[in-house]
Amino acid sequence: MHRTRVRIVEDALDANNTIARANREDFDRASVRVVNLMSAPGAGKTTLLEAALGELGAVRAGVLEGDVQGSLDADRIAHLHIPVVQLNTGSGFGGECHLDANMVRSALPALALSELDLLIVENVGNLVCPAEFRIGEDARVMISSVTEGEDKPLKYPLMFRTCELVVINKIDLLPHLDFDVELFRHHLDGVHPGVPTMLVSARTGEGVEGFRSWLREVAAREPVPV
Amino acid sequence: MHRTRVRIVEDALDANNTIARANREDFDRASVRVVNLMSAPGAGKTTLLEAALGELGAVRAGVLEGDVQGSLDADRIAHLHIPVVQLNTGSGFGGECHLDANMVRSALPALALSELDLLIVENVGNLVCPAEFRIGEDARVMISSVTEGEDKPLKYPLMFRTCELVVINKIDLLPHLDFDVELFRHHLDGVHPGVPTMLVSARTGEGVEGFRSWLREVAAREPVPV
Repeated sequence: MHRTRVRIVEDALDANNTIARANREDFDRASVRVVNLMSAPGAGKTTLLEAALGELGAVRAGVLEGDVQGSLDADRIAHLHIPVVQLNTGSGFGGECHLDANMVRSALPALALSELDLLIVENVGNLVCPAEFRIGEDARVMISSVTEGEDKPLKYPLMFRTCELVVINKIDLLPHLDFDVELFRHHLDGVHPGVPTMLVSARTGEGVEGFRSWLREVAAREPVPV
Repeated sequence: MHRTRVRIVEDALDANNTIARANREDFDRASVRVVNLMSAPGAGKTTLLEAALGELGAVRAGVLEGDVQGSLDADRIAHLHIPVVQLNTGSGFGGECHLDANMVRSALPALALSELDLLIVENVGNLVCPAEFRIGEDARVMISSVTEGEDKPLKYPLMFRTCELVVINKIDLLPHLDFDVELFRHHLDGVHPGVPTMLVSARTGEGVEGFRSWLREVAAREPVPV
C-alpha cells in the first residue's frame, strides 16, 4: 500500500512537471521572469513584497497570491497599484498546502503577461509541500524569520535546498531573541552549501534594497530551459 | 481528473480514520489520554513542552515527536527524562507534511503505554495538513505565535476550528511587535466561536502553569467514544 502511494505521488509530480513546462513556455513567450516565493506561515512574505515592490524602477511587477482561503494578502498588494491575482487552494476538505503548476495555469488568463517583466508567486505558507511542486518559475526564494529558530534548515532540508536565495527576515527583533545568525547559517550550509543569504527587516526596511536588487537581476535574466 | 483526486483523498481519509480508531482503542485500554499538538514551524511547540512537562506532578507524560527529518526535538525532550519517541515522515521525496494515524500506529510498539497517563504528539510544523488527519487523539491544541500576525485564523481556518484550545505564544515579544491580541481573538472568534485562548511565553515561563493545568485536566478525562 505504501508502494502504491509512492507511485501515485510520482505520477502526480510527473503530471505537474509537464504543466510547469507549459507555464514556463507561456512566461518565456511573454518575456516574463517568475519568482516562486515560499516560507512558513507568518514569516513575512507579503510584508516584504509591500516593502520591496513599490520601488522596482523600470521593472513592471505583478503578484499571484496563493492562500488556502481569503484574499487578505492580495488586498494588501493591491494598495501598491500593481496587478495582483488571488488563487485559493481551499476547495473542499482542508485545502491544499501548496500551489501546483495547474493552479498557477488556471490563474494565467487573469494576468496580462504582456504588461509584466516579473511575476512573483507568493506560495501558501508551508515549509514542506511547496518545495515539491514546480510551477514554471525561473527562481525560487524563501524567507526564514529569526523568530522561527536556527534549526529550520535541518528540519525542512528540501525547502532550503531548492532555493537560490534565503532571506533572513525580522532582524529588527534580534536584540529580543536568542537567535544565533551564524548558527543558522552553519545549519543552512549543511543542507545547501554556498547558498546566499540576505538579512532583512521588511518592517523597518533594513536590507530591503538588497532584495529589490535581486528581483531586478532576476527580471533581467535570459530564460534558462527547464 | 480533479474528481478522481477528491475520491482518492476521501478514501485516504476513511482509511486514516479506521486506523485512528484502532489507535484510540489501544490508548483507552492503557488509560492514556492523547494530545495532538500542532502549529506552524517555529511557533514554539518543543519549547512549550520543555517548559511545561517537567512539573506535571503525578501525571506520567510521554512525547511522540513528528518531524520530516532529524531528532532535534526528541533530543531536547529527552533532557527532561521522560519517554520520547521520534517519528520521521521524510522517506523519499520531500517528506510528509503531517503525521497520520498509521505513522503514529507504527510508533506505538516503541512506547510503554502502560507506564503513561498522557501522551503528547508533537505534529509536523504546518498549519494545513495536520488538521485533516485524526491520529486517535483525545484533544487537539494548537500554538499560534504573536510573531505570525493576527490574520492566521482567517488564512488557516480548519486548523483553528479543529482545536479545543489555542495557545498564543511568545507574548514576551509583544512590546516589540505591532501584534494586536484583541484583533487576533476577533478573527479567531470568526472561525471558531468561543474557543478558549491562553497567553503564554514558553521562553520566560509566563502563563505556562495554565497550560500545565490544561494538560492535567486532559489526563484526568474519561475517554469519549471517537
